[in-house]
Amino acid sequence: MNFTVFNKKGLWSITLLILLLAIPYGAFAADDEALIKRASQILGPLPASMPADQNPITPEKIKLGKMLYYEPRISVDGAVSCSKCHPVALYGADGLKKSVGHNCKGNPRNDPSVFNAASQISEHWIGNRTSVEDQAKQALIGPPAFGMPSYEAVEKILRSYKEYETLFKAAFPSDKEPVTADNFAKAVGAFERTMITPAPFDAFLSGTKDAMTVQQKRGLGTFIDQGCVGCHFSPYVGGQMYQKFGMFEPYQKYTKSDKVDEGRYAVTKNESDRFVFKVPVLRNVAMTPPYFHDGSVDRLEDAVRIMGKIQLGRDLTKEQVQDIVSFLHALTGKIPEEVSTVPVLPSTE
Amino acid sequence: MNFTVFNKKGLWSITLLILLLAIPYGAFAADDEALIKRASQILGPLPASMPADQNPITPEKIKLGKMLYYEPRISVDGAVSCSKCHPVALYGADGLKKSVGHNCKGNPRNDPSVFNAASQISEHWIGNRTSVEDQAKQALIGPPAFGMPSYEAVEKILRSYKEYETLFKAAFPSDKEPVTADNFAKAVGAFERTMITPAPFDAFLSGTKDAMTVQQKRGLGTFIDQGCVGCHFSPYVGGQMYQKFGMFEPYQKYTKSDKVDEGRYAVTKNESDRFVFKVPVLRNVAMTPPYFHDGSVDRLEDAVRIMGKIQLGRDLTKEQVQDIVSFLHALTGKIPEEVSTVPVLPSTE
Repeated sequence: MNFTVFNKKGLWSITLLILLLAIPYGAFAADDEALIKRASQILGPLPASMPADQNPITPEKIKLGKMLYYEPRISVDGAVSCSKCHPVALYGADGLKKSVGHNCKGNPRNDPSVFNAASQISEHWIGNRTSVEDQAKQALIGPPAFGMPSYEAVEKILRSYKEYETLFKAAFPSDKEPVTADNFAKAVGAFERTMITPAPFDAFLSGTKDAMTVQQKRGLGTFIDQGCVGCHFSPYVGGQMYQKFGMFEPYQKYTKSDKVDEGRYAVTKNESDRFVFKVPVLRNVAMTPPYFHDGSVDRLEDAVRIMGKIQLGRDLTKEQVQDIVSFLHALTGKIPEEVSTVPVLPSTE
Repeated sequence: MNFTVFNKKGLWSITLLILLLAIPYGAFAADDEALIKRASQILGPLPASMPADQNPITPEKIKLGKMLYYEPRISVDGAVSCSKCHPVALYGADGLKKSVGHNCKGNPRNDPSVFNAASQISEHWIGNRTSVEDQAKQALIGPPAFGMPSYEAVEKILRSYKEYETLFKAAFPSDKEPVTADNFAKAVGAFERTMITPAPFDAFLSGTKDAMTVQQKRGLGTFIDQGCVGCHFSPYVGGQMYQKFGMFEPYQKYTKSDKVDEGRYAVTKNESDRFVFKVPVLRNVAMTPPYFHDGSVDRLEDAVRIMGKIQLGRDLTKEQVQDIVSFLHALTGKIPEEVSTVPVLPSTE
């Protein structure tokens, strides 16, 4: 194309075209700024790790914790480790409706991902674990988990490995007897506190405006406008409060739930906690089907639609659902390299 | 120390001392050369990978194969993957006496490591799998393994993941329908053919004389002299022949075997194959207790002692056993970085 062929009228037309194109572009840019501002206030980017006053993260604890995370020989059937139900390859969940523990014992609820899990108000769907450390420790003797008869039994096995003795000493240098179930929990917890997956959403919040697609941004807007953030707030997009599941209608009306779960009532015995669950973290939610506390819904779009119906009391349009799902995909993050390498476990030899 | 204080006699003494020290050093050096020569003839260093004419290794196959190695969603209970029984963290074995498959179904024999396994005459203790590819494929429908009703059922699941469709196409570009159980087997096999663990023993063979300790070298000499290499030969230190277990006495006389296993007889129905098993690869043997086809022996020194007794018809001395065990530790290799990183598996979303 040769611009010299244009007459004055032609030049004006081009100028007008450029202006017309520029307006929506400028508007989008301004929209991005506004969206970033709103999302930053209520959601915000992931931190580099999830520290805890009670369990400071150290390289020695992380190293040991990662090994213990993969260790099956401290379970009653020798086949259960943290990584059994929380494999890194499946983003720290297991893809099952409900997890399976030692000797094929069934767990009561769906497996939440261990990624980005450590900064919640509590662990497990019904909040019956106070922290990732508490979860790790109780799993050792949990009937549908490791199933060990006692913490002493676990400690005895760990002490039979010289290398573990050395690593526990290094991780807990001021402890007289460092090989304990409490320190197992602290080491695993320290490792889990590094299981953070920064995603396109975080890049967007930090100013990389093309880190999310137009649809994902629209979905983020819808996610905020429709009130999903009323429960799913914080950088973890959840995990900060409890909520009744089925605010407007009973959830089992829309799910394929095999039985009704009374939720947090089992923990508190308060009538007000009936059908109450912890609001789940939505980080990597697109990578961790099936959905809900009982894994009763396979597809994310169904989960979003049902949530709109029973939690917000409204029928989200097909477009709104698709936009939100698109946004949720922008929460799929990158697993840190240090997390995705498998450690070598010690031998009794 | 000031050398000028020495008189002539002192200098002579030093010269003599140096000579005395030099003689055994020289003798050791010559011994090392001879040992390297002998060991190279009958054992030899590991190759960089274990190629196969039938299944050329390509980066695309390795990438896909590694993902499939970790994939549990193609098992009947959604919980069995190759890595369940062959976790990298435990050097590709599972630490159990006998492996456990889908729905806690018991396997008949102890889990052999998948590392350095692809260049054997066959797979499994009784040689009822012709190759790692054959093993991978049959595991999919194996009753105590993945337990799937048919290969078609596996293929249907794999095809439900767009990413797998793409990766199979990339790995098998000339296939019209690349997502097949045969190609699953080829991809997993290609990955397994890279599961090689070079060890101090290999460094020693290639001339790094201090890569093995004096005891390990003595143990290597004993391992050769006592005739262990009669069966445990090749760079894999085994895996190249079948042999009756209990040449001089029935094995169950010395093990805690719960029942007598007829071995390869189950495959061939030849009377001569009764109690015959494939000679196992001894690479990383110190990292993969318990021992023997039924995992009936916990300690490596017991395994070595029993092998001397029932396979060679002799009582190895305590020192000989300890030396051999020490040598076997020099077979503990380094897991390649590419093998020890966990892949991310696709989601249906």
